[in-house]
Amino acid sequence: MELPEPLERLIAELSRLPGVGPKTAQRLAFHLLRADRERVERLSQVLLDLKLRLSWCSRCFNIAEGPLCTVCASGRRDETMICVVEAPLDVLAVERTAEYRGLFHVLHGVLSPIDNIGAEDIHIPELLERLAGGEVQEVIVATNPDIEGEATAAYLQRVIAPLGIRVTRPAHGLPFGGDLEYADELTLARAMSGRRAL
Amino acid sequence: MELPEPLERLIAELSRLPGVGPKTAQRLAFHLLRADRERVERLSQVLLDLKLRLSWCSRCFNIAEGPLCTVCASGRRDETMICVVEAPLDVLAVERTAEYRGLFHVLHGVLSPIDNIGAEDIHIPELLERLAGGEVQEVIVATNPDIEGEATAAYLQRVIAPLGIRVTRPAHGLPFGGDLEYADELTLARAMSGRRAL
Repeated sequence: MELPEPLERLIAELSRLPGVGPKTAQRLAFHLLRADRERVERLSQVLLDLKLRLSWCSRCFNIAEGPLCTVCASGRRDETMICVVEAPLDVLAVERTAEYRGLFHVLHGVLSPIDNIGAEDIHIPELLERLAGGEVQEVIVATNPDIEGEATAAYLQRVIAPLGIRVTRPAHGLPFGGDLEYADELTLARAMSGRRAL
Repeated sequence: MELPEPLERLIAELSRLPGVGPKTAQRLAFHLLRADRERVERLSQVLLDLKLRLSWCSRCFNIAEGPLCTVCASGRRDETMICVVEAPLDVLAVERTAEYRGLFHVLHGVLSPIDNIGAEDIHIPELLERLAGGEVQEVIVATNPDIEGEATAAYLQRVIAPLGIRVTRPAHGLPFGGDLEYADELTLARAMSGRRAL
């Protein structure tokens, strides 16, 4: 028995999602086949809405329902600080801490010579344009603490510092609630070298 | 920052899929947000098609694009045999063996007193109706070899045997390519008791 074409096509589309292999796609497709018609129609509509109603903030490339994201549109943020992150989900993570009151800039990637991704491919030109306005005093480079994230931070430091703007990076160290014994060497080494007086 | 509503709703809908937790749903939603508009629209359309174009075979409850599934509509199957399975995916599994030439009957479940699922809840009445036609000579009960599958098979044997129809079950035993040393006790016990002369 061949699978009916609508089912084959759904399995093919689902298989393209990250972390979804052919077996999982098949399982999800059969689940949806059995699900209420209203539920599947709702999922279908919500997918359309995603593309119809959401886009990227024209200033910081965060998710936005209009031309500006809620952070940029708020008017109550500290416009002298920009936190640079790799992805929109990182904005959420920083916002959840409720510690940061400045603006964001979402790169949508990191520098990666191996994948041929340079500064022009990841919204760095737009960041420099924002900085040219002269209002920003500090750029916090909150790219991930991995090789590409570090390289991207180093690059930004090199191009931004000459503009007389302070470039910082969130502290590296032991995770809160973590156990010294189980910390990996690199994390512990950074925590030691970054030690602070009590 | 709150997530925009279309994104929140997509995450909520994706979270309801089996095996997809809130974190995975978030990751998938952001992936779709970044994906081509055409791709997301295609996925949306394919979901609609699933419900518009597919339903259950009116005879055997397999997936069907019309009133009958391809097996029931084929006209070249052995109509004296019915293989009873729990789910449409099981039909596929049996069909892949290319060994079986009879018809199917998909229960869409198993008997489960604990979940209050009785014979009327899983297309058993429709099976008995088909058998009343008098043409069927053998029913192969290919429910899963677990507690509920066995109980369902035992129930079917009890109600079908009095009709003078042979009720069989696929052989239990060692999986092909398996290693005796690693077989679980129950499988090995069944393989031993089900031994055949060479």
